[in-house]
Amino acid sequence: VRAAVLSATLDELVDRGYPAMSVQGVAERAGVHKTSLYRRWGSKGALLADALLSSSAAVASASDTGALRTDLFALWRTAPAGPGRNDGARTVAVSRALAAAAADPDVAAVHALLWERRLDLVRAAVDRAVARGELPPGADPELLLDLLIGPFQTRVIARGQAPDAAFLLRVMEVAVQAVGAEPVGAVGAQPVGARPAPA
Amino acid sequence: VRAAVLSATLDELVDRGYPAMSVQGVAERAGVHKTSLYRRWGSKGALLADALLSSSAAVASASDTGALRTDLFALWRTAPAGPGRNDGARTVAVSRALAAAAADPDVAAVHALLWERRLDLVRAAVDRAVARGELPPGADPELLLDLLIGPFQTRVIARGQAPDAAFLLRVMEVAVQAVGAEPVGAVGAQPVGARPAPA
Repeated sequence: VRAAVLSATLDELVDRGYPAMSVQGVAERAGVHKTSLYRRWGSKGALLADALLSSSAAVASASDTGALRTDLFALWRTAPAGPGRNDGARTVAVSRALAAAAADPDVAAVHALLWERRLDLVRAAVDRAVARGELPPGADPELLLDLLIGPFQTRVIARGQAPDAAFLLRVMEVAVQAVGAEPVGAVGAQPVGARPAPA
Repeated sequence: VRAAVLSATLDELVDRGYPAMSVQGVAERAGVHKTSLYRRWGSKGALLADALLSSSAAVASASDTGALRTDLFALWRTAPAGPGRNDGARTVAVSRALAAAAADPDVAAVHALLWERRLDLVRAAVDRAVARGELPPGADPELLLDLLIGPFQTRVIARGQAPDAAFLLRVMEVAVQAVGAEPVGAVGAQPVGARPAPA
């Protein structure tokens, strides 16, 4: 039931936008009574926060993959499409609906919470990487997160492009090297920003 | 008069949002007759595009500064606060209003146009840098632009933070090195992602 409610919350957000969405609407979509939603979540803001954070929570416990890059890839998969929905068009729609309401105090609080949650995950991944010798002491998790999320959000929100794993891997390589990781592969490898050679 | 109209266009966007803004409203703010705006621009979408692009146009002609980093810094100063308004709170408001309306076809067209315009400027800067030997042949201008704009937009739109030149300079250093620029300064310099040493 909880997964159905959280998925219905994101559907309601995408279809109606944050100002017009309602707990009543979510209840109807999920086929439950709105009083039980109010009892459990209290408000539409709290419901939305839980819908956006629930996929992060699932991944957080499994994100120690033994290497920095795969830890970060696991984190990226918590983009706000919601539990069990790895769907590019939906990620675009959810991200845009959130950006549209970014100035709303409830949504700003959700954004801040999401950011802190993700930053905690990145901090933990960086700490593990420093302990393994993958990153130098002092590597900055906030810069890493900005570099990972920013280019991706620009493509999704402003340009309406679905997330693309190949693009993410390229950006991730830039980001981890920016905070001090050694390049993967041989000495003298191509810089990551070079265009692929013509076939 | 033109500068007043374009500034009034962004005020109207920020105060009312794209769906509710009108040519009539812009005309009232700028103290001109709406028929003259319709005659010159045709629609509110065209008016908005011109308002957003006008500051880029001013900088484009002056952007050959002789070095890649300073060219890119000049480009960054074309963030959509509008002509003569280098105001962090306004940049946040304009960026959020644009993000809020990103799914509107008119605004999507403006976004695409802005992106192409900026990409042209970055392409020209990269070509000059390759010619000077600052960048290797094949450096990718689109990756460079994603890396420059993305982290900045994330801070502005999702987190409501005013643009910060120190942050931009740090991100820019990551971006130019990602496409093959040599670090500024001595061999053995700190990685850009290291936190400043405690004072």
